[in-house]
Amino acid sequence: MIVDCAVYTNGKRRDGDLPLVDALEASKEPDSFVWVGLHEPSPDEFEAVREEFGLHELAVEDAIAAHQRPKLEVYDGDLFVVLKTARYDDATELVAFAELQLFVGESYVVSVRHGEASALADVRRTIESDLSRIRCGPMAVLHAVIDHVVDDYAPVIDGLDNDMAEIEDAVFAVDRPRGFDPSERIFKLKREVLNFYRNTEPLLDPLGRLAAGQLPGAHPELASYFRDVEDHLTRAVSAVAHARDLLSEALDANLAQVTVRQNDDMRTISAWLAIGGFPTVVGAVYGMNFQHMPELETRFGYFVVLAVMLGICFMLYRRFKRVGWL
Amino acid sequence: MIVDCAVYTNGKRRDGDLPLVDALEASKEPDSFVWVGLHEPSPDEFEAVREEFGLHELAVEDAIAAHQRPKLEVYDGDLFVVLKTARYDDATELVAFAELQLFVGESYVVSVRHGEASALADVRRTIESDLSRIRCGPMAVLHAVIDHVVDDYAPVIDGLDNDMAEIEDAVFAVDRPRGFDPSERIFKLKREVLNFYRNTEPLLDPLGRLAAGQLPGAHPELASYFRDVEDHLTRAVSAVAHARDLLSEALDANLAQVTVRQNDDMRTISAWLAIGGFPTVVGAVYGMNFQHMPELETRFGYFVVLAVMLGICFMLYRRFKRVGWL
Amino acid sequence: MIVDCAVYTNGKRRDGDLPLVDALEASKEPDSFVWVGLHEPSPDEFEAVREEFGLHELAVEDAIAAHQRPKLEVYDGDLFVVLKTARYDDATELVAFAELQLFVGESYVVSVRHGEASALADVRRTIESDLSRIRCGPMAVLHAVIDHVVDDYAPVIDGLDNDMAEIEDAVFAVDRPRGFDPSERIFKLKREVLNFYRNTEPLLDPLGRLAAGQLPGAHPELASYFRDVEDHLTRAVSAVAHARDLLSEALDANLAQVTVRQNDDMRTISAWLAIGGFPTVVGAVYGMNFQHMPELETRFGYFVVLAVMLGICFMLYRRFKRVGWL
Amino acid sequence: MIVDCAVYTNGKRRDGDLPLVDALEASKEPDSFVWVGLHEPSPDEFEAVREEFGLHELAVEDAIAAHQRPKLEVYDGDLFVVLKTARYDDATELVAFAELQLFVGESYVVSVRHGEASALADVRRTIESDLSRIRCGPMAVLHAVIDHVVDDYAPVIDGLDNDMAEIEDAVFAVDRPRGFDPSERIFKLKREVLNFYRNTEPLLDPLGRLAAGQLPGAHPELASYFRDVEDHLTRAVSAVAHARDLLSEALDANLAQVTVRQNDDMRTISAWLAIGGFPTVVGAVYGMNFQHMPELETRFGYFVVLAVMLGICFMLYRRFKRVGWL
Amino acid sequence: MIVDCAVYTNGKRRDGDLPLVDALEASKEPDSFVWVGLHEPSPDEFEAVREEFGLHELAVEDAIAAHQRPKLEVYDGDLFVVLKTARYDDATELVAFAELQLFVGESYVVSVRHGEASALADVRRTIESDLSRIRCGPMAVLHAVIDHVVDDYAPVIDGLDNDMAEIEDAVFAVDRPRGFDPSERIFKLKREVLNFYRNTEPLLDPLGRLAAGQLPGAHPELASYFRDVEDHLTRAVSAVAHARDLLSEALDANLAQVTVRQNDDMRTISAWLAIGGFPTVVGAVYGMNFQHMPELETRFGYFVVLAVMLGICFMLYRRFKRVGWL
Repeated sequence: MIVDCAVYTNGKRRDGDLPLVDALEASKEPDSFVWVGLHEPSPDEFEAVREEFGLHELAVEDAIAAHQRPKLEVYDGDLFVVLKTARYDDATELVAFAELQLFVGESYVVSVRHGEASALADVRRTIESDLSRIRCGPMAVLHAVIDHVVDDYAPVIDGLDNDMAEIEDAVFAVDRPRGFDPSERIFKLKREVLNFYRNTEPLLDPLGRLAAGQLPGAHPELASYFRDVEDHLTRAVSAVAHARDLLSEALDANLAQVTVRQNDDMRTISAWLAIGGFPTVVGAVYGMNFQHMPELETRFGYFVVLAVMLGICFMLYRRFKRVGWL
Repeated sequence: MIVDCAVYTNGKRRDGDLPLVDALEASKEPDSFVWVGLHEPSPDEFEAVREEFGLHELAVEDAIAAHQRPKLEVYDGDLFVVLKTARYDDATELVAFAELQLFVGESYVVSVRHGEASALADVRRTIESDLSRIRCGPMAVLHAVIDHVVDDYAPVIDGLDNDMAEIEDAVFAVDRPRGFDPSERIFKLKREVLNFYRNTEPLLDPLGRLAAGQLPGAHPELASYFRDVEDHLTRAVSAVAHARDLLSEALDANLAQVTVRQNDDMRTISAWLAIGGFPTVVGAVYGMNFQHMPELETRFGYFVVLAVMLGICFMLYRRFKRVGWL
Repeated sequence: MIVDCAVYTNGKRRDGDLPLVDALEASKEPDSFVWVGLHEPSPDEFEAVREEFGLHELAVEDAIAAHQRPKLEVYDGDLFVVLKTARYDDATELVAFAELQLFVGESYVVSVRHGEASALADVRRTIESDLSRIRCGPMAVLHAVIDHVVDDYAPVIDGLDNDMAEIEDAVFAVDRPRGFDPSERIFKLKREVLNFYRNTEPLLDPLGRLAAGQLPGAHPELASYFRDVEDHLTRAVSAVAHARDLLSEALDANLAQVTVRQNDDMRTISAWLAIGGFPTVVGAVYGMNFQHMPELETRFGYFVVLAVMLGICFMLYRRFKRVGWL
Repeated sequence: MIVDCAVYTNGKRRDGDLPLVDALEASKEPDSFVWVGLHEPSPDEFEAVREEFGLHELAVEDAIAAHQRPKLEVYDGDLFVVLKTARYDDATELVAFAELQLFVGESYVVSVRHGEASALADVRRTIESDLSRIRCGPMAVLHAVIDHVVDDYAPVIDGLDNDMAEIEDAVFAVDRPRGFDPSERIFKLKREVLNFYRNTEPLLDPLGRLAAGQLPGAHPELASYFRDVEDHLTRAVSAVAHARDLLSEALDANLAQVTVRQNDDMRTISAWLAIGGFPTVVGAVYGMNFQHMPELETRFGYFVVLAVMLGICFMLYRRFKRVGWL
Repeated sequence: MIVDCAVYTNGKRRDGDLPLVDALEASKEPDSFVWVGLHEPSPDEFEAVREEFGLHELAVEDAIAAHQRPKLEVYDGDLFVVLKTARYDDATELVAFAELQLFVGESYVVSVRHGEASALADVRRTIESDLSRIRCGPMAVLHAVIDHVVDDYAPVIDGLDNDMAEIEDAVFAVDRPRGFDPSERIFKLKREVLNFYRNTEPLLDPLGRLAAGQLPGAHPELASYFRDVEDHLTRAVSAVAHARDLLSEALDANLAQVTVRQNDDMRTISAWLAIGGFPTVVGAVYGMNFQHMPELETRFGYFVVLAVMLGICFMLYRRFKRVGWL
């Protein structure tokens, strides 16, 4: 679906909805370019766009497949950029990724959104209102879109950090419900974190090349802006790498916690076993049916034995208490 | 066995089956090249091919041994490329690798398949139907073959991902059958994953050199195509590295799960031991055969004791239930 | 808040408090520069400063956001440096970070402190008293500030090392209180250590560039001084990396300790179970109510059985003692 | 001991055993070189050789010490190469390393074997029979020796792989004998693997330099041959790195297996404890000696109790069977 | 304290003890240099030396602080080198480090020892006796000192290796004393090993620069000698890295061993519990006081029950023996 198709001349959007062919024509005038926004285009729609702009066969294959890593390719002087947008879903604690592709030529930008990639209407509005920026042409649009995508990583990181904190609390909670084990949550969060890293880190290299300004169509005024986005991405990637390392530690610490608790439980159990076991042994002995057992016939034998039993049980209790088994 | 031997002039396949010698002769005409396809050649067959094309002694040694890593060597201006084809067997959860070797000269391609390396007939058909590509000569064949091999990695990765998902389910299943432990499956999958990585990752460097177009016989039009294959391979390698990291976590998470379950079991067992232990202790005490035990002679002693026993057992049950041991 | 605003000419501070506009004017005289110190400036204050000095839009955005990684950016020949100050709180065993930003131009330095970043009054005093240094201009101020920040890392490292030593003692203590597990402390210290690494290591690269003297405004005399700071930072980062590695080992060693102790406990418990179990079995057998049990009627049966019981218990005790279960 | 001392002119070995001095003299003729083979030379023998060939003092120190890492040094235009030969001993599962050193000058090769380094007589025979190769002079000898040493790594890797497979079987065996734990074997194999890596990996860099042909005495025709050896070594090192990674996983998987088995055992034990515990509790209760216990006096009390006991035991058995504890 | 202060002219030491000022004067003659050896100099002594030789302020700060990493700095054409000497204490199994600093100018060497850094008298004697070397001037002294320091690493590595072997034996010992756990020793050895690595590895880079001969004062004849020291250091660092990796494995293997042993113990205990438990259950049943229990009145009931008990116990014993639980 063609979502929007606008021609910008000297940074100003021309009025009216232009059909694709006219837009392309208009974009060839000096200081003009066209930005075509597609959302999950049908093969026919895409073929139309491809022919008009002469997009490279390989880039088009990728654009349709939409299972790319973030990357930047140069085909005959035009750029093809793949971005991954991320959205954090707090309920499922999952990060949803979608794909956004940009074809950037001298006088055109074609953006292709897949899945739930966030709509670019806001980006368009923002850049349309910033004349000094949009005058730089298609590369300014590229910057605005990447900036938008990278800014959207921040809430994802906040969501992951929040989960991290909850997991920390769960791992070191004094009491935890039966059968509850944070290791599943740790594992699944780690999976998301590794996934996030994998979908964002490869963008660092393209951003570095854009900031260095050595690509076709580079605009010197934009270099700082690309470097700024690169810096934001570096921060996001560094935060995620930090989370990744901490989660491994959390898994190990959780195991240590469980093992320590198990040891404590075993000691408690054993202590009570000992306390209850002593009377049982004595009872078993004096429960034997020998005809000749002198103690049994004494007047106060039972009371003596009972007192001794209770005394020893109490001593055991005190002792276990002291060494920390109870 | 010589599977196919065809001469291409200006991108068109010459009719008829040519014997090796004639094919070689024909390939020396301008804009022509020959593609000889071998499958597990006997030493004699191979020697014949080697002499005709003047292949380098060392490359030939490697081609016969067929226990190579993926690599690209330049011998006197000709290329020798070793590829690993992969096929995933879902029943055994194993990845089967086979070897494919290519000798690429100015006017010839010799492809050598070993073991179950996937047949190249399809590749040949595809490239024969794409005139613009095959006109680029032997390097176009090289590209088509590598592209085919790398594309075949995708179903392998899908298979491994599928196993990953099953393993995740098994690790975190609430009930699992006696003696069942996913750690064996995790280990074996990890072995396959490491193996896959080892058989694919070294191909990245040769592809990078092919994409950079600095090798003898490089064709500028093909650079983008090789870069596209490199990109696909990067994606496969990145997915495998991701699986590798997750599997380590899965092994640790599994251990934590088992330990937590063990602790829960131990608590349950101990709770029942305590509940059953109390009447036993009391029974042992009142089972002693002392002649003088006043309680035994009372009218309702037994009922009182029985009531106390049951009461305490019930209290213990309630308490263990509350703290989550039952 | 503008904390201090002073003009230095030939290394000497001009008397009197100058308003911002006059200070800027004065700084344009030869061999002069102005150093404006801000602390959590309001947007209006900051806007005033920005306009006077023509600071770059992007740097200003960063300066207001204040969630940066350490970095050095060059905007139109001026430097923008972000530093992280660290302070160790012994009570909570946490490292508190704050942010310090510097805009360094040919004739001005603007320093912006956020949160609890240590005040720079001391740095100002120190550098004002070192004529030979302050004559080098704004870069000397930059050096003095970074030097101050990096020097403040030393007590943090001492604090972390101290915690490390305490943790080591706790892990390998012969007796530890019930429920006490150093793994939580190890984990939290590791989190601090990783955090510290993340907030200091990225500064190495900017310092390297400053030491190499290739940045605008570089002063050859200061290269050694920047290299010296770089060296101090390298030492701090290396110490932290060392702590990070040791903490992982500590977590593993702790788990091993707990497991060994558990095994020892289980053996002790079992030994006592065996010693108490034997009389219980014998008692149960002779407690059976069969009418015809010849042993029960013998004169010394009970004493013989008692002696055998005690003897075997003693033997078991000796044996368990010898094999180290008791 | 001087094992062999031969002069080669135009690739042909001169007849007769020459004393060292004459050999040196002869080697100075055009297209000639001498190859002196030493085996654990005495200091005097070595001193004689050193003086004749003017070997560098430092290389000689190393040659006598013989505890080197693989390396290649250039001293005044001559090469000094240290190699590690490896032999796998299947009985002890140990890899035995020995040292082989080569001094390579314009017209001489001095090879020094230490310990059980494999004899070079075979290498000498092979190269003497390959005229085209030996005509390249001392560098051809160097290639032949390195090729021989690296080829000898293959059986070592096979041996290690074989052990790996046995260990895998042991780790995941359903039944394993009491006290048997593969972790010792895993550890010791890992030690060998790490050792092998350490003794072979550093040779990659020298081989790379030899293949690049930038060293003194480099012969263009040999570059491919050195690259071939480099490739073989890369394969060996990659296989060893693979084994190293898998062994770490095996250790973890083994721990998980043991823990799972322990949990299964504990459940079985507990189930039987419960089944046996119920009659014991009932027995203890009805074994009490209260004078007034109505049930005891009933006609069928015993049979009812017995039936209830057996019934409950059977129910418990069924239940435990169902949940997989038995 | 000034330990020694000597002037060397043409490699020969001048007779007599010269005061510092005269020594400096004499060193300015051609082919002369002075070597001043200090041991923990007081600030005043050091200030005197600093002024005479014009040492750089920053290097002097470092020299007094003496908590450096190994490094090499160039200040105004003079070198400042920091070394770490190591000594292994077998009793405590600790490695003691001390610091050694060298200022190397065109015509002077100032060596500063801190703590227990090994005295340099031996080095001085050795180099004084090697005329060809000492004629190369101050750089020869630098080489001799570094060589000495690096050679002293060898016994440390031997000591650590020795501990490694002892630990391996302890981990895999069949019997180990109660409460004995090698994990503490493994951890502490690992700490030493990491520390050693941290104090030696950073010296590799300075040695590489010295071997490359690109530093001021480089003497072409010494390049090989520095490369030789670099090689020795590489060997030491590689050995330590090997120890580091093995120790991690040892910790894991130890944990596996303990867990296996625990499982074996639990099985043994359970087997005995079952064997002793059966008679107890039977005893409890026949110990019930029901008035009507027909078995009790039979003539041989007791003997039958006794026989059945013993028989079943024996069967259980046989069975547990067979499955390896006993």
